[in-house]
Amino acid sequence: MHKMRINMPLPPKHHISFSPSDRSVDILPGTSLLEAAWMAGIRLASTCGGNGKCLQCRIIIRDGKTSPLHPAELKSLTEGELEEGYRLACCTFPLSDLAIHIPEQSLLTDIRLQLEGISGEKTLEPIIDVWEIHVQAPSPEDPRADLDRVKEGLENYINAVELTADIGSTRQLSSLLRENDWRVSSYVRSNEIIGFGPHGSPPLGVAIDLGTTKIAAYLMNLLTGRELAAVGALNPQARYGDDVMTRLRYAVNNADPSGRSPGKLAQEVRGTIRDMIAGLVEKTGDSLSQVADLCIVGNTAMTHLLLDLPVRQLAASPYVASVSQAIDIKARDLDIVASPGAYAHILPSIGGFVGADHIAMILATDIDRATGISLGIDIGTNTEIVLRRPDKTRMVSASCPSGPAFEGAHITDGIRAMKGAIESVKLTVNSVEYRTIGDASAIGLCGSGIIDAIAELNKWDLIDERGRFKKTNGRIIAGEQGLEFQVAQGDGKKGKGRIVIRQRDIDEIQLAKGAIRAGIAALLEVTGTSPDMVGEVILAGAFGSFINILNAVNINLLPWFPNARYKQVGNAAGQGAKMALVSKNERRRAQQISAQTNYLELTTHPGFNRLFADGMMFPKIIR
Amino acid sequence: MHKMRINMPLPPKHHISFSPSDRSVDILPGTSLLEAAWMAGIRLASTCGGNGKCLQCRIIIRDGKTSPLHPAELKSLTEGELEEGYRLACCTFPLSDLAIHIPEQSLLTDIRLQLEGISGEKTLEPIIDVWEIHVQAPSPEDPRADLDRVKEGLENYINAVELTADIGSTRQLSSLLRENDWRVSSYVRSNEIIGFGPHGSPPLGVAIDLGTTKIAAYLMNLLTGRELAAVGALNPQARYGDDVMTRLRYAVNNADPSGRSPGKLAQEVRGTIRDMIAGLVEKTGDSLSQVADLCIVGNTAMTHLLLDLPVRQLAASPYVASVSQAIDIKARDLDIVASPGAYAHILPSIGGFVGADHIAMILATDIDRATGISLGIDIGTNTEIVLRRPDKTRMVSASCPSGPAFEGAHITDGIRAMKGAIESVKLTVNSVEYRTIGDASAIGLCGSGIIDAIAELNKWDLIDERGRFKKTNGRIIAGEQGLEFQVAQGDGKKGKGRIVIRQRDIDEIQLAKGAIRAGIAALLEVTGTSPDMVGEVILAGAFGSFINILNAVNINLLPWFPNARYKQVGNAAGQGAKMALVSKNERRRAQQISAQTNYLELTTHPGFNRLFADGMMFPKIIR
Repeated sequence: MHKMRINMPLPPKHHISFSPSDRSVDILPGTSLLEAAWMAGIRLASTCGGNGKCLQCRIIIRDGKTSPLHPAELKSLTEGELEEGYRLACCTFPLSDLAIHIPEQSLLTDIRLQLEGISGEKTLEPIIDVWEIHVQAPSPEDPRADLDRVKEGLENYINAVELTADIGSTRQLSSLLRENDWRVSSYVRSNEIIGFGPHGSPPLGVAIDLGTTKIAAYLMNLLTGRELAAVGALNPQARYGDDVMTRLRYAVNNADPSGRSPGKLAQEVRGTIRDMIAGLVEKTGDSLSQVADLCIVGNTAMTHLLLDLPVRQLAASPYVASVSQAIDIKARDLDIVASPGAYAHILPSIGGFVGADHIAMILATDIDRATGISLGIDIGTNTEIVLRRPDKTRMVSASCPSGPAFEGAHITDGIRAMKGAIESVKLTVNSVEYRTIGDASAIGLCGSGIIDAIAELNKWDLIDERGRFKKTNGRIIAGEQGLEFQVAQGDGKKGKGRIVIRQRDIDEIQLAKGAIRAGIAALLEVTGTSPDMVGEVILAGAFGSFINILNAVNINLLPWFPNARYKQVGNAAGQGAKMALVSKNERRRAQQISAQTNYLELTTHPGFNRLFADGMMFPKIIR
Repeated sequence: MHKMRINMPLPPKHHISFSPSDRSVDILPGTSLLEAAWMAGIRLASTCGGNGKCLQCRIIIRDGKTSPLHPAELKSLTEGELEEGYRLACCTFPLSDLAIHIPEQSLLTDIRLQLEGISGEKTLEPIIDVWEIHVQAPSPEDPRADLDRVKEGLENYINAVELTADIGSTRQLSSLLRENDWRVSSYVRSNEIIGFGPHGSPPLGVAIDLGTTKIAAYLMNLLTGRELAAVGALNPQARYGDDVMTRLRYAVNNADPSGRSPGKLAQEVRGTIRDMIAGLVEKTGDSLSQVADLCIVGNTAMTHLLLDLPVRQLAASPYVASVSQAIDIKARDLDIVASPGAYAHILPSIGGFVGADHIAMILATDIDRATGISLGIDIGTNTEIVLRRPDKTRMVSASCPSGPAFEGAHITDGIRAMKGAIESVKLTVNSVEYRTIGDASAIGLCGSGIIDAIAELNKWDLIDERGRFKKTNGRIIAGEQGLEFQVAQGDGKKGKGRIVIRQRDIDEIQLAKGAIRAGIAALLEVTGTSPDMVGEVILAGAFGSFINILNAVNINLLPWFPNARYKQVGNAAGQGAKMALVSKNERRRAQQISAQTNYLELTTHPGFNRLFADGMMFPKIIR
């Protein structure tokens, strides 16, 4: 439903139709085609906030008049593409009705998310108790209130003197009792009734890993601890910046001055989470009113934006969080539909850039209990690293702004880990061998493929220590935009399927891996630890779980730990969220981890610039 | 801002202009003129829900075409009035643009509300503590979260281990700290920070007496217990029925089946309360964010509708409340704007029709501590009565559906206690003497005036024991609509200012006072108390405070208590709300009163019909 003021004449709208999805939308002049696609429900990719930077929102104009080419388009689109009608949707405005084609690569679809994570036997001690209550029907002689009756029934199980009831649960009760022969399931959280359900309905919980780019949600039975369903989605906030800082700046610049309604970024991510939860219970045939508890992890910026906490102070030095302790908040206060009085538990964080997801990773990987020196690395748009020495009481954590390059952003032919993405690369004497996800035709390189390709370039001495392409030699060729290495040739038609790595791609990876490498070095330095002392290296996150570790060492993303066992554990943050969802003990442990971990601010660490410069290098140590 | 669906052609609207207020509104055909007036912000009276029953929404059509006369109008409007253009707004629909005049008597204005109540020294022990905190500014070496810093400061005063912070208070903190040189006032409610304010801002509270007809709100300083301002308003739900049962039925029939959004009745009363609180702090120049606590009382139906609790089971025998214990609910969950984490405390109730306002009345009048046998009567649309014997551990309360007749409704020339209302009447041998509120020209009779008039009729033997007018005798005259007694003659022009009492008015009063009289009798009966044993009779509520007690006894509204002291205490419920607002002790005492009071259901009391029939009589005992 559109809102409009009466008596405000509006200019005529343009009708925009999209293929191949067969959707359309009517928009006012001045609306970009990126916004038009979003309005039509088309998940057109964009990670720069719509200002011609990320170059992901490529579309083809099939019919109609549009605004003139924007400099960003002249710079990024080839002549052949321009002839075909390619435009960047964010820089293009309609001058007439339009017919638009969206190439598959421009869509945010079929993302392979890490939903499984590591497994492990953990304690089951949910914060929700469920009690089945059967009460006497009221009569003129006994007209006591419905809730009083149920509380009396609960007194058989628990000390109900201090028992309170969420107003939403009270709203459910009168009709539930009368429709179910005076029997109800009562969901009780310590001394509060948070909801009721029909007799015999088990309480469910949802664990959520709220990433900068991706969101994973898991539906669990709180009585058995069993996972019932899982679902992944993209963080809709990515439209407003794919890295944390851009997104925080957007939030600061677009805050509602009255503070009355939640910010746009909060609204969007809450809507996505609400939809994910609805999708989960639909999958299993359960009811939203059974969702009696939630546990949410994410980096500090993501949890702040979800909670609609102020972020101005988080976006500038000294990067101060509004709150770092665990938060229990009514799900309804996050616009989430669940059992009416259900809470969401947000795990505690450590610093402005070491968030609840990091704590969850430590929970899931037991780093806090390891017997040897343990290093945990969760590679993402931000990479968090923790180092623990059993001989010291406190752990140390740091955060590196590694950026989205490992997720394919800002890379010429980079794509997310989707069908057709090259995930591994190997050079032979006269060919390039690669493997794609789903064994489909190659459409781009995902993170692990890029690492492999650059490691191979390094092994074959095609780049120097500073990451510069060596002169052309048959394998390095001079393309339209400078030297490039061809990973896949494609079918030759207008460059379709041709996949290359250019100098600027190596530069991007170099910055990302330099930051991570420097973070590891700084943690080793401040704890007085040499690489040979490290007994265990845990790589978490989707990317960390798929990379070839030898190649990661080869490109100097990781140092060589001669005595370490490596574990690639997948989505450990999600696993930690699940553990804390079903166990009060794990929530207490998370508090302890938060209290026992020091935050190392890398930007003020003496000598960090040197470590960063070292980390950018490609040392010629072929193992 | 109107909401409309695009592409839905709507019929042309009619422009309705109102005098003397000079407002106008455009409405669709099919909208009644009552709704039109409300849309234009004109407080046109209506207590029957807009179905031609209460006859209050009288308007005059000055220009334009309207729908034909409704049977209700033909029945209730005189020929002279029809000639003048009088219509009932609820039965009239526009057929063209219209010019409408609203007579002053049809407006809900200038109501004299009882805001003062009894006074008394009470304990000051507010649930809110305020602590002034000054913290160190963060730095790269100390980037701890803002909230952690403040909690550390609070540890100097309180045990902060279990201290939590409402998410809304956390949202306030970061900018408050930075704009006030790192100083804040922290409002703490037991172990929860519910809000922050600039350094030195005292916490305020609002006590609310939510009546079926009227709402009174009081702004208090929680540190001093001093009342800062008071405001009264009409309960906007009166549009949907002026008595409790009509209103409950409306709520049942108009419930949102999804249960997602609060019911219309909840929304309306919440809006009024929100506006009243905003008006209070505007009066005193304080800020809404200082409103750190609320305490609300009302009858069970009113608190249920405010809380949006289900009322189907409350509207039919055995009249079961959803909840009767005290409720603490976030003000924001009632759509009330205050300090972000502020709670509203709803006092407990006793039965389906003996609510929190009754408990508040007992609190304020100390009936639970009286040394003799004490009877408390709060006369309103529902009349609640409590009887306490110091020799018994439990009090007994009952509720009588006395209806709105004492507030002037359903009475030919009945009006609320407003300027020009006749508030007392005395007959002499050859004249009628009366006094009006504000000494203005008489425009109608309010409750105490009606009681006086009927008592005089009884004393002068102009009505019989069954309340029937005796034959005409010069004072009782035959009017257009049967026998009538003229209280005021008016100026003779078209009957303007002429005020009469007709047989059906006496019938209405008879039903109302019969219900109260029977309730008192039943309480005396079940407690084995004779009238001469009663030591104290407390009359609360606006009406009860203004009536002439001798006349109330004369018409058999009250029995004769030969040994009782009478106290007319005004709005005791509001006073009790204020006491509970500023004192945790009084809240505990309210719980005790709730637990120690039995509810007597009158409809199932054996012999109630006999008591009711007796109560309707006018015994000829002239004292």
